[in-house]
Amino acid sequence: MSVQGTILVLDGTSTNRIMLKVQLTAAWYHVVQGEKLQGLAGLLRRTKPDLVLTSQTLPDGSAADVKKLVLANPDLVDVPVVAIAPQNDKAARLKALSDGLDDVLAHPFKDTFLLARVRSLLRARAETQELQVENSSHPIGFAESSAAFISPAKTARVAILTQTPRTSALWQNALSKRTRYSLSAHTTSNLQAVLSGPLPDAIVFEVSAGPSGLKLLADLKSRSTTRHTVLVGVLEEENAHLASDALDRGADVICMGPFCADETVLRLESQIARKARLDQMRASLKQGLVESWVDPLTGLHNRRYAMRAIDQIARKAARSGKGFAIMLADLDHFKAINDRFGHTGGDMVLAEAATRMEQTLGSAGFIARIGGEEFMIGLSDTTQAKALDLAGNLCACIREKPFDLPDSAAPIPVTISIGLIAAQPNVSTYSHQSQRLDGLIKSADTALYAAKSAGRNQVRLLPSAA
Amino acid sequence: MSVQGTILVLDGTSTNRIMLKVQLTAAWYHVVQGEKLQGLAGLLRRTKPDLVLTSQTLPDGSAADVKKLVLANPDLVDVPVVAIAPQNDKAARLKALSDGLDDVLAHPFKDTFLLARVRSLLRARAETQELQVENSSHPIGFAESSAAFISPAKTARVAILTQTPRTSALWQNALSKRTRYSLSAHTTSNLQAVLSGPLPDAIVFEVSAGPSGLKLLADLKSRSTTRHTVLVGVLEEENAHLASDALDRGADVICMGPFCADETVLRLESQIARKARLDQMRASLKQGLVESWVDPLTGLHNRRYAMRAIDQIARKAARSGKGFAIMLADLDHFKAINDRFGHTGGDMVLAEAATRMEQTLGSAGFIARIGGEEFMIGLSDTTQAKALDLAGNLCACIREKPFDLPDSAAPIPVTISIGLIAAQPNVSTYSHQSQRLDGLIKSADTALYAAKSAGRNQVRLLPSAA
Repeated sequence: MSVQGTILVLDGTSTNRIMLKVQLTAAWYHVVQGEKLQGLAGLLRRTKPDLVLTSQTLPDGSAADVKKLVLANPDLVDVPVVAIAPQNDKAARLKALSDGLDDVLAHPFKDTFLLARVRSLLRARAETQELQVENSSHPIGFAESSAAFISPAKTARVAILTQTPRTSALWQNALSKRTRYSLSAHTTSNLQAVLSGPLPDAIVFEVSAGPSGLKLLADLKSRSTTRHTVLVGVLEEENAHLASDALDRGADVICMGPFCADETVLRLESQIARKARLDQMRASLKQGLVESWVDPLTGLHNRRYAMRAIDQIARKAARSGKGFAIMLADLDHFKAINDRFGHTGGDMVLAEAATRMEQTLGSAGFIARIGGEEFMIGLSDTTQAKALDLAGNLCACIREKPFDLPDSAAPIPVTISIGLIAAQPNVSTYSHQSQRLDGLIKSADTALYAAKSAGRNQVRLLPSAA
Repeated sequence: MSVQGTILVLDGTSTNRIMLKVQLTAAWYHVVQGEKLQGLAGLLRRTKPDLVLTSQTLPDGSAADVKKLVLANPDLVDVPVVAIAPQNDKAARLKALSDGLDDVLAHPFKDTFLLARVRSLLRARAETQELQVENSSHPIGFAESSAAFISPAKTARVAILTQTPRTSALWQNALSKRTRYSLSAHTTSNLQAVLSGPLPDAIVFEVSAGPSGLKLLADLKSRSTTRHTVLVGVLEEENAHLASDALDRGADVICMGPFCADETVLRLESQIARKARLDQMRASLKQGLVESWVDPLTGLHNRRYAMRAIDQIARKAARSGKGFAIMLADLDHFKAINDRFGHTGGDMVLAEAATRMEQTLGSAGFIARIGGEEFMIGLSDTTQAKALDLAGNLCACIREKPFDLPDSAAPIPVTISIGLIAAQPNVSTYSHQSQRLDGLIKSADTALYAAKSAGRNQVRLLPSAA
C-alpha cells in the first residue's frame, strides 16, 4: 500500500481512465490503471489497491466479475469495488448493487462528490484494515476465513429518521414491504426515542439542507452507543455538496434522488453485512484476548497471567505498604496417576484439583496453572500468618476427599505440596522489580522442594529476605 | 454510563449549572450536577461521567483540582475535563491548559460550538474506551497502570499547513522558539509534501472559510496513514460555525482567535501525549495478541496455536484434496533430566530441542510446544512417506548431538519419541471436523505411546482410518 492510498481504475476506454486518473492524482492518491478482466488477478496482487473503481462493463466482463476477483484474493477481501454507470441509469445502479458492488457512481462525475465518496470508502477500508492487522497475529488463514464471517440474516433493527412524521411513515411502509427488518420511524427532532430504545443496527436518515441534519450525523458518530451504527443518508434531491458534507461527517453511504426503497434495501443489506463482519472481528479480537490469559484445561488463569498478576501485586504492595505472598503448589506423584489412568484420568485430577483450590482461595488472591501439575497462587494485602493458614487450607482441600475417576473402582487419594514465600512491600524501582520477583519465585520453588523432600502433602514457608 | 452519554456539570452558581443543563439535555445528553470539590470523588464514582465541564473556580477549589480528582479514579483516567472561563480571558485559558485541563470553553457559550466540542470530546472518549475495553481482558490493574503510559518526550514531528507560505513561515518561527518539535511548514495546496515525508505526529492547520480546508480535514482522517495523527485547527478569526464544522469532521481541538504560539504549544503537548498513549494501547493490544500464541520458554507456538493451526490445515486439505499429517513428539526420560540438572537444566534442554526441531522442520509445517516436554507438529500438503521421512529427521536431530549443559561435565544424550498420523483430506462438514481432529490427535497419541513402549527414540506411524 502506498502512503497516499492506491486506487485501481478499470475501464476499457483510455480517455475515461485518464480523466479519472487526473482527478484522483490531483487529490494526492496513487492511481494504477487496468482495462480488462484478463490479467486482473495479477494486477491486484502486484498493486494491492485500497479501492477499485471499475466501469460497469469491461471489454471482457463486468463490474460484478471484478468484485468476484477481488473477493477471491484473501488480502483484498475488504477492498471496496465501486462500479461506474451512466448517469440516471437506475436499472444499472440497482443491478450493480444487487451484484454485490460496494457502490455505484454516476458518470460524468461531480468532482466534489466523487472525492468525498473516495474518502469515505478509504476511511471504512482503513478501519477494517486496522481491525485485521490487530487480528493478524492470529494463526494462518485468518484473513482467508474472514470472508465466511458475514453473519446469517438475523432480523436487523433499522430506524428511520426524517424531518416529518409523514416522510418517515411513507419510508417505513415502503421498506416494510421489501424487508424483514424490525423497522421504527422517528423524526430528527426526537433523537431521544432512537437512543433510548433498543439500539438500531442501521439508521436511514433524511439529509436535509439545514445544518441540523449534518450535526445529527456527527452526533451519532460521536456517541459510544451509535458510533458503529450503519448510517444510510437519503437526499431526496440531487445535491453533491450536501452529499459530500454528509459523507465527510460519517455517513456510510448516500442514496441520492427521490427515495427508492429498492436501492435503500440493497444498500442496507450490504452495509449491515459489513457491520456484522466488523462486529464479529471486534468480538473475535476480544475473545482472543480473554483466552490468552486462560488455561484451557482447568479454566484457571495461565502462566502468562500469573507473571503479570504477581508483578501487579508487588507494585500494589509497594504503594500500600502491605505484605504479599507467593505460593507454588505441585500435585504429588502426578506422573504415577498419569501412568495408571492415562492422560484423560490425569486431566480430570488436574481439573478437579483446580476447582477445589479455586473455591478454597475465594477472592483472597489469584490462582493459575503454570505448568503440567504446577500452580501459582498470589495473595496481596496479607501477612505471613494469614498466608500460611490459607496454604494449609489449600493442602487440606486436596487431601481431605479422594478423587473420583471413572476408570477407578475406588476414589484415589491425591495430595499436593506447597512452597510459600511471604514478602514485605519494597520500594525498589520498577526496573529492579522483575529481578526481585524472579528471586521471590525461586525462593517459593525452593520452599516447594523442601516440602517435597520432607515427605510431600505439606506446606513449607520461606520468609522473604528481599 | 447512560446510553446517551453522561456529562457532569460543576459550578458553584446554580443558574450557570441550570443553563448548561438545559442546553445539554436538549441535545439528548444525560446531565448530572455538582457544585464543589467536596464530595466530588464520590459523585464521580457514582455517576461515572463521560465528560466533565467545570467552572474555572469552584467555592473550594479550581478546575485543576477537579482534573486531579478525575485522574485519581482509575476508571476515569481518560474522561476529558473542560474548564469554563470568562470570554477573552486569555491568561485564564493558558493557565487552565497548562494545568492539564483538556480544553477551555469561553463563557457565555456559542451554542453551536459548545455542542460540537462536546461531540468531539465524547468521540475521542469513545475511541479510547473501546481500546480500553479491548485491553480490559488484561489482568488486574491495567486501567490503573495506564496512566503511567504517557510516553517520555521524544521529539515529536509537527507539520504546519496553512493557506500561504508566509503564514506557515510565521507560525513555524513562533513555534520553534517554544518547542523542541521537529517542525515543517507547508501550504494546503501541497498536501503531497506532508504525505510523502516522514509522517507527522501532529498537524497544525489553518481552518479556512472555503470548503477546501474542511475537505482537507476529512481527507486526513480518511487516510490510513494519517487517521490517528493529531489535528489542531487554528481559526485566526472567531467563527463558531466554521470551528464546529472542523470539529465534526475530525479536528481534535480548535484554537480560536489570532494565532497564539503559547496556546498552540500547550494544546499540541496534551494532544501528542494523548496520541502517544493511544498508540501505546494499540501496540500493547497487538503485543498481547502476538504473545498469546507463543510459548515463552521455547519461543515456539503454544498449544492454543497448535489447535487452531491443525484445524486450518485440515480445512485446507479438504479444499485442496491433499493429505496432511500430525505428529506428537515427547522427549524421553525428561523427568530424569529435570531431577538431575534442576528446572534450569531442563528448560535449557527444552529450548535447545525446540531450536533443533524448528530448524529441521523448516517451512514444511508448524511446531508447537503443547505441554511440559511434549510437542505437536502439523504438516499440510504431504504424503505418508514424506511425513515419515521428516519424523525420522526430527528424531535424528535430537539424538545425533548430545546437549551441552553448564552444570554437566560432559554433554548429555537426549532422545525423543514421535507418534505420527498421516490423514487423508476429508470433506466432512465443519461441525464434524473438531470431532474428527480429536480422533486424529488421539491416534497420534496412541502412536506416540507405541513408540515409547517399543523402547523410545523412534517414530511410530498409525495410518489414519478416518
